[in-house]
Amino acid sequence: MRSRGDRLEAALAEHELDRMLVTDLTNVRYLTGFTGTNGAVVCGPGLRVFLTDFRYTERAVAEVSEWETVTVTGDWLAGIAERLEGKVGFEDDHMSVRALTKLEEKLPDGVEAVAAGGAVEALRRVKDAQELAAIAEAAKLADAALKATLEEGFVGRTERAVAAAFEAHVRAGGGTLSFDTIVASGPNGAQPHAEPGDRVIPKGELVTFDNGAKLDGYCSDGTRTYATGDPGEEGVRVYETVLAAHQAAMEAIRPGVKGEDVDKAARDVIDAAGHKDHFGHGLGHGVGLDIHEGPRLSLRSDDVLATNEVVTVEPGIYLAGDLGVRIEDLVVITDDGLRNLSSLPKDLTYVD
Amino acid sequence: MRSRGDRLEAALAEHELDRMLVTDLTNVRYLTGFTGTNGAVVCGPGLRVFLTDFRYTERAVAEVSEWETVTVTGDWLAGIAERLEGKVGFEDDHMSVRALTKLEEKLPDGVEAVAAGGAVEALRRVKDAQELAAIAEAAKLADAALKATLEEGFVGRTERAVAAAFEAHVRAGGGTLSFDTIVASGPNGAQPHAEPGDRVIPKGELVTFDNGAKLDGYCSDGTRTYATGDPGEEGVRVYETVLAAHQAAMEAIRPGVKGEDVDKAARDVIDAAGHKDHFGHGLGHGVGLDIHEGPRLSLRSDDVLATNEVVTVEPGIYLAGDLGVRIEDLVVITDDGLRNLSSLPKDLTYVD
Repeated sequence: MRSRGDRLEAALAEHELDRMLVTDLTNVRYLTGFTGTNGAVVCGPGLRVFLTDFRYTERAVAEVSEWETVTVTGDWLAGIAERLEGKVGFEDDHMSVRALTKLEEKLPDGVEAVAAGGAVEALRRVKDAQELAAIAEAAKLADAALKATLEEGFVGRTERAVAAAFEAHVRAGGGTLSFDTIVASGPNGAQPHAEPGDRVIPKGELVTFDNGAKLDGYCSDGTRTYATGDPGEEGVRVYETVLAAHQAAMEAIRPGVKGEDVDKAARDVIDAAGHKDHFGHGLGHGVGLDIHEGPRLSLRSDDVLATNEVVTVEPGIYLAGDLGVRIEDLVVITDDGLRNLSSLPKDLTYVD
Repeated sequence: MRSRGDRLEAALAEHELDRMLVTDLTNVRYLTGFTGTNGAVVCGPGLRVFLTDFRYTERAVAEVSEWETVTVTGDWLAGIAERLEGKVGFEDDHMSVRALTKLEEKLPDGVEAVAAGGAVEALRRVKDAQELAAIAEAAKLADAALKATLEEGFVGRTERAVAAAFEAHVRAGGGTLSFDTIVASGPNGAQPHAEPGDRVIPKGELVTFDNGAKLDGYCSDGTRTYATGDPGEEGVRVYETVLAAHQAAMEAIRPGVKGEDVDKAARDVIDAAGHKDHFGHGLGHGVGLDIHEGPRLSLRSDDVLATNEVVTVEPGIYLAGDLGVRIEDLVVITDDGLRNLSSLPKDLTYVD
């Protein structure tokens, strides 16, 4: 694969831009390797400039290669503006209205800022081998941490304590969390984004465990719903429906398919079971340096899947005040379907 | 103190706005108590609307009072736009260029979006009693964690291990980190924002330890520089200079003083010692829900300090390739000066 800077330069030419200004820090990291909290990139034909400030000069020396590093000493936006030329793409989806206003005041005559957000994100969708390895490692770490947490049991512990145990296992393995762990028991499971609380997990309930680890900047994401004893007829029925929806989506995934069609494969199963109003989010999303990135698998997603994209597949059913089930795998799209990075079983599993 | 919504309404009137649209999540939390990841506020005369989506309806019921909660089901920006009227202030320092473009397409006839960023941040500068207590608790937790870490010693351990030990103590005390801990030994101390690495801390060096805890959403921030045995003549001289600069700034702090004048009090001491070029950042910043907020203490800060603002006082000297020293306290501005939330001694302290 060509270097990331070269791919961005090619994208610039396609969009008839003379320069691309990248200010989103995750995109800056993707292009240059820089992990500090202030940096920007100016890319153009044969031009590879990384800008930072005094605090990060030393770190830039250590982290950034293939990009000329400039330490801006005076006004930050003025330092950027003087390196721009012609039609300059900027990240309108990240840059604030105020930053653009100030930048435009400082642009040299004849330089024009053009909305070009998403250019780097488009490059980020397809992962290279190193990125795939990092995501797979993060998923492996999260699965091991979840397994260790299961062995310690759920019943009689608070959601918060179970979530903390998971985090401790992730940290012991050298990672951090890719997002705040969700441990949602009983009726709390009906909130797709519940925060673990002081509720003590009893026997005979469903517990949704949505979790991810981060290693070397790359995220994992996965969900299992466990039962602490018999969750009742409705609980079992909902679980089986979500699992069937999940499997239908997994079978629909391959390069060339639209995100909305994969979403529909799962949603049809849930609708047919009478839960049309109980699956209020999209089926999945890309994962990489960000926990949520492209492509999207949702009702209104035109994204067309491609080999080496990494996405979640996470249908759910949420019955307010009662219970919730979500089952989520993290998969790499391959030429003939997918490779599953999630290793834990999906049959309804009982945890003490 | 009046409710936060009432204070925002008063600010609107001052700016001749009919509505304020708040989209920054920290500002939304400040106003409503909501801690989820998607929410917005529309405030106007007698109007208090909080908007979120399906995923957070239940959480909003638990967290938000005094604001009418609306769950937007269709397009998010359309759901917001239909609740706007007249001249609408928006947060131009947070809202992206793209979001504004899309919002403007959806505004009803006669509705105008006006840049009004900073309105909520201005309210956040002065803390109420509950906020001061939360910040003081966070500072206490961080100091206790740092003390426990010191007792375990530095010499022979990696920077990373020492930083991890601090984090474990913070978590054991029920908090999280307010930012990634900095443990920077020897020449690494010359990077103001160094990341703890695999460097094993030897005897006879300076170690900068910049740390903060977060409790109930509120941050602390503090720095000490320790010596692992005699740091040499230059090390001691630099330490004494930074300490004198720190004390000069502490004495300059009281309501009515400008941020630039407090910065100057410290900077003059450092300049006079021949280190004019070695203190490349501002003296301090406000702390609250964000680790960096208003007011600013820096060379070009017109901010005038007021009672019950909380700021850091953190001069430093950085000698590239050699060493660095920073000493930072977190203080509440009081009617007659300040109250120090940092409890650890500032004389040069030796750690094994």
